[in-house]
Amino acid sequence: MKKRLETLRHEIERINLEMLDLLCRRGEVVTEMRALKNELGIPLFSPEREERMLRELVAANRGPYPDTAIQPVFREIFRASLAVMEAQAENEMRVSRGKRREDLLIAIGNLVVGREPIVVAGPCAIESEEQLEAVAAHIKAAGVTMMRGGAFKPRSSPYAFQGLGDEGLVILQRVAKRHGLLTVTEVTDTRSVDQVARYADVLQVGARNMANYEILREVGRTKRPVLLKRGMAATIDELLWAAEYIVLQGNEQVILCERGIRTFERATRNTLDISAIPLLRQRTYLPVIADVSHAAGRRDILAALARAALAAGAQGVMVEVHPDPPAARSDAQQQLSLEQFTAFMSQINLTRPHAD
Amino acid sequence: MKKRLETLRHEIERINLEMLDLLCRRGEVVTEMRALKNELGIPLFSPEREERMLRELVAANRGPYPDTAIQPVFREIFRASLAVMEAQAENEMRVSRGKRREDLLIAIGNLVVGREPIVVAGPCAIESEEQLEAVAAHIKAAGVTMMRGGAFKPRSSPYAFQGLGDEGLVILQRVAKRHGLLTVTEVTDTRSVDQVARYADVLQVGARNMANYEILREVGRTKRPVLLKRGMAATIDELLWAAEYIVLQGNEQVILCERGIRTFERATRNTLDISAIPLLRQRTYLPVIADVSHAAGRRDILAALARAALAAGAQGVMVEVHPDPPAARSDAQQQLSLEQFTAFMSQINLTRPHAD
Amino acid sequence: MKKRLETLRHEIERINLEMLDLLCRRGEVVTEMRALKNELGIPLFSPEREERMLRELVAANRGPYPDTAIQPVFREIFRASLAVMEAQAENEMRVSRGKRREDLLIAIGNLVVGREPIVVAGPCAIESEEQLEAVAAHIKAAGVTMMRGGAFKPRSSPYAFQGLGDEGLVILQRVAKRHGLLTVTEVTDTRSVDQVARYADVLQVGARNMANYEILREVGRTKRPVLLKRGMAATIDELLWAAEYIVLQGNEQVILCERGIRTFERATRNTLDISAIPLLRQRTYLPVIADVSHAAGRRDILAALARAALAAGAQGVMVEVHPDPPAARSDAQQQLSLEQFTAFMSQINLTRPHAD
Amino acid sequence: MKKRLETLRHEIERINLEMLDLLCRRGEVVTEMRALKNELGIPLFSPEREERMLRELVAANRGPYPDTAIQPVFREIFRASLAVMEAQAENEMRVSRGKRREDLLIAIGNLVVGREPIVVAGPCAIESEEQLEAVAAHIKAAGVTMMRGGAFKPRSSPYAFQGLGDEGLVILQRVAKRHGLLTVTEVTDTRSVDQVARYADVLQVGARNMANYEILREVGRTKRPVLLKRGMAATIDELLWAAEYIVLQGNEQVILCERGIRTFERATRNTLDISAIPLLRQRTYLPVIADVSHAAGRRDILAALARAALAAGAQGVMVEVHPDPPAARSDAQQQLSLEQFTAFMSQINLTRPHAD
Repeated sequence: MKKRLETLRHEIERINLEMLDLLCRRGEVVTEMRALKNELGIPLFSPEREERMLRELVAANRGPYPDTAIQPVFREIFRASLAVMEAQAENEMRVSRGKRREDLLIAIGNLVVGREPIVVAGPCAIESEEQLEAVAAHIKAAGVTMMRGGAFKPRSSPYAFQGLGDEGLVILQRVAKRHGLLTVTEVTDTRSVDQVARYADVLQVGARNMANYEILREVGRTKRPVLLKRGMAATIDELLWAAEYIVLQGNEQVILCERGIRTFERATRNTLDISAIPLLRQRTYLPVIADVSHAAGRRDILAALARAALAAGAQGVMVEVHPDPPAARSDAQQQLSLEQFTAFMSQINLTRPHAD
Repeated sequence: MKKRLETLRHEIERINLEMLDLLCRRGEVVTEMRALKNELGIPLFSPEREERMLRELVAANRGPYPDTAIQPVFREIFRASLAVMEAQAENEMRVSRGKRREDLLIAIGNLVVGREPIVVAGPCAIESEEQLEAVAAHIKAAGVTMMRGGAFKPRSSPYAFQGLGDEGLVILQRVAKRHGLLTVTEVTDTRSVDQVARYADVLQVGARNMANYEILREVGRTKRPVLLKRGMAATIDELLWAAEYIVLQGNEQVILCERGIRTFERATRNTLDISAIPLLRQRTYLPVIADVSHAAGRRDILAALARAALAAGAQGVMVEVHPDPPAARSDAQQQLSLEQFTAFMSQINLTRPHAD
Repeated sequence: MKKRLETLRHEIERINLEMLDLLCRRGEVVTEMRALKNELGIPLFSPEREERMLRELVAANRGPYPDTAIQPVFREIFRASLAVMEAQAENEMRVSRGKRREDLLIAIGNLVVGREPIVVAGPCAIESEEQLEAVAAHIKAAGVTMMRGGAFKPRSSPYAFQGLGDEGLVILQRVAKRHGLLTVTEVTDTRSVDQVARYADVLQVGARNMANYEILREVGRTKRPVLLKRGMAATIDELLWAAEYIVLQGNEQVILCERGIRTFERATRNTLDISAIPLLRQRTYLPVIADVSHAAGRRDILAALARAALAAGAQGVMVEVHPDPPAARSDAQQQLSLEQFTAFMSQINLTRPHAD
Repeated sequence: MKKRLETLRHEIERINLEMLDLLCRRGEVVTEMRALKNELGIPLFSPEREERMLRELVAANRGPYPDTAIQPVFREIFRASLAVMEAQAENEMRVSRGKRREDLLIAIGNLVVGREPIVVAGPCAIESEEQLEAVAAHIKAAGVTMMRGGAFKPRSSPYAFQGLGDEGLVILQRVAKRHGLLTVTEVTDTRSVDQVARYADVLQVGARNMANYEILREVGRTKRPVLLKRGMAATIDELLWAAEYIVLQGNEQVILCERGIRTFERATRNTLDISAIPLLRQRTYLPVIADVSHAAGRRDILAALARAALAAGAQGVMVEVHPDPPAARSDAQQQLSLEQFTAFMSQINLTRPHAD
C-alpha cells in the first residue's frame, strides 16, 4: 500500500508539471490579451465570459468531481490568474514598495519627513490666537517643528463647535510664522482645498473623508504634502488605494496616518492598530505616522502608545496639545496640557526607529 | 440591626428629597443661565468653570468619601445636569420623535414614502442605456416605482469602474421617464449636487460620505428628498446627527438607510444591524429603509433579510438588480438577475409592516 | 487586432479544457490517495510535501510569470484541490444540509422543535421558587411550553450573583413539573453535565463556552437535546463546527441559537446578526432560534427583533421574563415584566415562518 | 445681563456646596448601611428599592424639569453612589493596583517574571519528541528560559489535529528537563487541571476559555502560576475580572496575556490591542505579556509587534517557533522557523521596557 502511495505521489508530481506547462502557456496568452485589451480599451476582467467558460467546462467534466466541485476549482484558477494580473497591477500601483525600494523622503521647509521620526503637535481645534500662541511657543521650545490645528472641524453634531473656518487659517499661518513652525490642517470640502493650501504647509484628509475620492483627487491636484488618515473602519488595503487616488493626480507627497479603528473595546476611543504600521511600511514607500490622541481618546497612555508606534516602525507621531484641556471646545478628554506634553516628550525619548 | 437598617433607609430617602429640592433649584438656575447664555452667545458648556467648581468642592469635602471619590460623583452630577440640557437639546433636535409624533410622509411623484413599504431597485451602477432599460422595464412590471442607479460610483480602487458620470445622469433620467419611474442616485462632491439634482428625484448620500458634513449641508440646501445611508462604522446616534445636518438647512425630506456595519464576520460583506431599524423608528419620525444588497454582499439571503427588515419596522427596502449580474462592472456577486428579482418580490410578500 | 483577440480567446478555452482534463486526472489520483491515507492513518494534508512540490515547480518555471507569481498560482491550485477535499469534508460534516435535506425535528415532550416556531421564555437566573413560579404560571397561560432559567450563571465579575446552583436545578424541575413546562438550563463545567441532565430537559451551552470543546463533547455524550449559543465573536463557521463536536458524540439533537455579536455599536448590548439565521438555515438541517434579550440588552425593541428573526427563518425565539425586572439579580435592564411579556406575545403574532 | 449671569453662577456654586453636604451625609449613611448589609448578608444593590425611591421622587417633583428628566438625573445620582461603592469594590479587587503599588514578581525556577522582559517560545502544538527537541535546543541556545507547547489543542474543527494529549505532556516535561527549560501548556477541562499541573510549570488558560469560570477557579486552586489569555472579544475589564476569579482561590501568580481581538481588519488574524498593555499595567500589579503570533497570524511583522509591545510596557512576549513551519499540524502560517527565530531575537533587542 505504501508503494502504491508512492506511485500516486509521483503521478501527482507529473500532473503538476503538466499543469505548470499549461499555466505558463495560459500566462503567455493572457499577457498578450492584456496588451491587446489595453490598446483596444477593453476591460481586462470579463465576468460573463468567465461564466460561459465555466458552463463549457462543466459540460466537459467527466468526473470524479461533481460539477459543483469543478466550478469552484476553475473559479480558483481564474481568480489565481486574475490575482497574478492584480499582483502585477499592485506592483504597478504607484504607491507600492515594488515601485520604489527606498523610503520616500518628503521635504517640507527644513523638515524631512521619513528621515527621522517627527512629532506633530497642537490643539484639536484652533480656538483663538492666544490659545494657539501658547501651544506654539511651548512645542517649539520642545523641539517640535510641525504644528497641527483644525480650522474646519468635522463634528458629529451640527451643534458642536465647527471650528473658526477662514479666520482659523489666518491665525494658524500667523502664529506658525511667528515661531517658524510648519503647519497641518484639515480640508473637508473640494471647494476649499485651494483656500486651505494658501495658508497651510500640509493638507490633512481626516478619517471621515478618507473615502471621499473627490477630496483625494483635489488634494492630489495641489502640490502640497498631504496627511492622509485611515478611516474608522477602513482596511489597510483601502488606505493604500486612497493614497493611490492622490498620487495618481501627480502628487506623491502623501504621509499615511494610523489613528485607530472602531472595535468593541470601550476603554479607548478607538483601537490603535499597531500591526498596520509594519504592514504599511512593508507595502509602500510612503511615510507612516500614528495619531495616538485619536486612537486612545484619553491622556494617560499616550506616551506608551507613541513609544510602541515608533518601535513598530512609525516615522512619526501626532499628538494633541492644549493650554487648558478641560476648557477645550473639542476633544477635551484627550488633549495634553503643556506640562503633560513636556513629560510626553521626555517619555518617548525620540530616536530613530529600529530597522529589521 | 434590621431596625437600624430601616432607620438608615428612611434617612437616605429624606436626603434624596432634599437633593431633589436642590436639584430643582439648580435646574431653575441652569434654565435661566441657559437663556441668558443663548442671548449673550456664550457656549453652554464651560469645562474650565466646572474644573474650578470641582476644586472648590474637593476643598470643602469633609468625608467619608476621599477627594478622589467626591470628584467623580460631582462630575456625574454635572454630567447629569448637562445630560438634562442635552436631552432637552435632543428633544429639540429637529429630527427627533419628540418634535413630531407621527411618521413623516415624503411625497415624491405619486409615491408617498412612509405610508406603505417601498422597494427601491436597480443596478449598482448605470453601465449603458440598454442595461438600465432592461432593468427599468422589468422592475416597473413588478410594481416598483423607484429605481436606483449610480452615475458617480465611489470605488475603493482608482482603477475600478467609476461610473459614467454626467452621461449616466442623462441615461437615468431618460430611461426613468420612459417608464414613469422615480430615480435615486448618489452625490459624492459638493460641487455636483446641483447638477445631480437636475436629473434625479432623490439624492443619495452614500455610506462613505455620511460624515462629510459639507455634502450633507449642500443636499440640505436643495429641496430634493435625500436618501442618507449609514456609514460603515457609524453609530445610530451619528446617523441621526448626520440627518440633522441636512434638516437644519431647511430640507426635512430625509430617508434613513441601514446598510450593514463592518464586523469580524466574513460570511456577509457587512452585518445588517437589524436593531437599528426599531431604534431609529423610535427616535425619529423620518422614514427608515434597509439596503439588503450592500449588507449581505451575496444574493442568496436577500429575501430573508428584506422580510426581516420589514418585520422590524422598515418602511422599505433597497435591492440591486442587473440584467446580467456576472457581467456587472461592480458588485457582481450581490446583484439579482431579473428572474431572481421576480422571485425576491414574491418571497418578500410585501404588506404593511407590523406596528407595535 | 480584434481577430487576434478572438484567436487568443480560443487558445485560452483550449488550455482550459486541457487543464480540466489534468485536473480530473489529478482528482482521480487524489481520491485514491485519500482512501489509502485514511487506511494507513496518514494525515490528508502534508504541507511539507506541498512546499517541496512548490520548489520543484518553481525550478521548472520557464515564464512568463516570475517565480513569485507561479508560487501563489500553485498554492491556489493546491488550495483549490484541498478546498475540494474540504468541500467533501463539509458535505461529510454531520450537521451539513448536504447530509440531510429536510429540517431536523427534535421532539421534546409534546413539543417538536423545528416544526412550528417556539418561544422559550423565563428569567435570566432562578432566584427563588416564588420568582420562578410567578413566571411559569404566566408564560404557561400565554401558551409557552419551554421555560429557561439559569442555575449556574457565568458572570464576568466573581462578586456578582452566580446562581443558586444545585438548589436552582431542584426549583426549576419542581416548578416546571407543576406547570407541565419543559426546561432549559446552562451547563458550565464538564463535571456537572450529568447532574444538570438529571434535572433539565435541554442543556444549554452558553456563548462563553461555545468554544470549550470538552463541554461540547460531554453534552454530546448525554442524549439530551442541546441549545448551543453562538459565541460573542464566533463566526458562523465556528458555530457549525461547535455543533459538529456535539453531533460527533452521537447526539444529533442540537438547537443553534444566534444571540448577537460584539461590535462597536453601543445602542444595543450586542448586534443581532440577522443574516446568520438564513445562512445557518441554508447550511444545516439543525433548528435555529434567536435569543433577542441578550442581543438587544434592552426591552424596548424585543418584539421587533423577534418578528425579524422569525421572518428571516428562525424556528423560535428566546426571551427573558422576570416578575419584577428592576429587582432582578442579573440582566435587570433586558428582562420583560409579565405584562410586557403578554404584549410581546401579541406583537410577535406567532405563525409559521415564511419559506422561500 | 452679565451681572445677572454672575449672580446665577454664585447661586449654582452655593447649591453645589449644599449638595456636597447632602452627599457627604448620604455617604455616611450608605457606608453604615453597607456594613450592616454585609453583616446581614443582604445584597448591596437593591434595584426594586431604587425604583420605588424614583417613583417617590417623581411624585415630589415640582419642576422645572419634567418627570422624564428628573428620573435620569436621580438614576445618575444612584449610579454615582453605586459607582463610588464599586470604585471601592474595584479598589478592593484583589488584582487592583490599589491593593499593591509595586509590580508582582513571579518566581518560577530561576526566572522572575515581572523583573525583566521574558520571551516564551515554542511550537503551537507538541507534535513529536523530535520536533520539540529541535525547538528546545535552539531556543535554549538563544537564551530563552520558558518553552510553550500545546498538548491539548482546542481547534475550531473537530477533524483538525487536537494535540497529543497526555503523551504530549510527557514529551514536554522530558524535553524541557533535558534542556533546563520551564514549560507552559494549556488546560481546557476542569477535570485535567491536576494532571497538567503535574507536568508543566505554568498552566495556560487560552482565549477560548477565558470566560469559563470553572476552569479559572480550578487553576486558582492549584498553586501553579497561570498564563491567562484575553478572550477574542473580551474587554480589558473582563480580563481583569477573569484574573480575579483565579486570585480569589488563593493563587496570585497570574500572568496576563494580550493576544489580539477580533475586528474587521483581515490583514492580520487578530488586531493586537496595544493600548491594553499600558492600561493593564496601570490597573493591576500582575505581569502583562503579549502573544504576537496569535495576534498577527503571519510571520513577517512579529519582531515589529514584539518591539511595540515591549515599548508599551509589556513584561514579555510569546512567540511560536517550529523546526519546519510549513509542515506544522496547526498555525502553519504564523510559526517562525528556527532561523527566523534567531533573527527575531536580534531584531527585538531585548532590554528592560521603558518606564514612565
